Amino acid sequence: MAQLSSAQVDLLKEAHLAQLVTLMPDGSPQISPVWVDTDGSDILINTALGRVKSNNMERDARVAVGVYDAANGYDRVVNIRGHVTAITEEGANAHIDSLAKKYMGVDTYPLRNAAETRVIVRIAPDNITGR
Amino acid sequence: MAQLSSAQVDLLKEAHLAQLVTLMPDGSPQISPVWVDTDGSDILINTALGRVKSNNMERDARVAVGVYDAANGYDRVVNIRGHVTAITEEGANAHIDSLAKKYMGVDTYPLRNAAETRVIVRIAPDNITGR
Repeated sequence: MAQLSSAQVDLLKEAHLAQLVTLMPDGSPQISPVWVDTDGSDILINTALGRVKSNNMERDARVAVGVYDAANGYDRVVNIRGHVTAITEEGANAHIDSLAKKYMGVDTYPLRNAAETRVIVRIAPDNITGR
Repeated sequence: MAQLSSAQVDLLKEAHLAQLVTLMPDGSPQISPVWVDTDGSDILINTALGRVKSNNMERDARVAVGVYDAANGYDRVVNIRGHVTAITEEGANAHIDSLAKKYMGVDTYPLRNAAETRVIVRIAPDNITGR
């Protein structure tokens, strides 16, 4: 278990897109941009069941998350290797609304798809680098 | 082999930091921001021998590369799964200068370390997604 610094928590709380890395069935890496949140210790992602990244994380908990500030990507960057500790439906709809507030400035996530089941993915950092 | 669209080539030629994903010895993913270049077909990275990412790519050719435009990260994004086809010293010093020109606007890479051996990493895309 690795601990985020306060500067890294600040970076994660700002509205920068994160890159989430999951592992495909053959072990090769898959990358996609996601909204990101933290409680100060864990990384929280919100996605929907049935997507490639969701299926990958259900099969193999090992992930990576990278975030940088595009205005200062050399000094403000965090690279995390970690593992998924929980994928939960509870609170996931309220959580995507809070992320919509953070990233879009709106109170309600506007792209909600009633056919999808949203989930919160909790990621514990194992290794953290960054400047 | 997957082919980059002209919009994706444009995105890669702009000065956005890319996120490069490599696989650690235990198969877990590692992510770090890198400068990126393309010849229109392959992705070209410049790094130095002996680094974690370099050692990883020498051991396991499977990588991922993600790039987005922070000014419009929802519409201008490319997510690539691919494999390393070559890691070569030839031309690597001139190549890092060209990347310094692209990303820093200078003619000569200012952070050169004479103790390091720079290499060009050539990545062939196997799967490309993006909007």
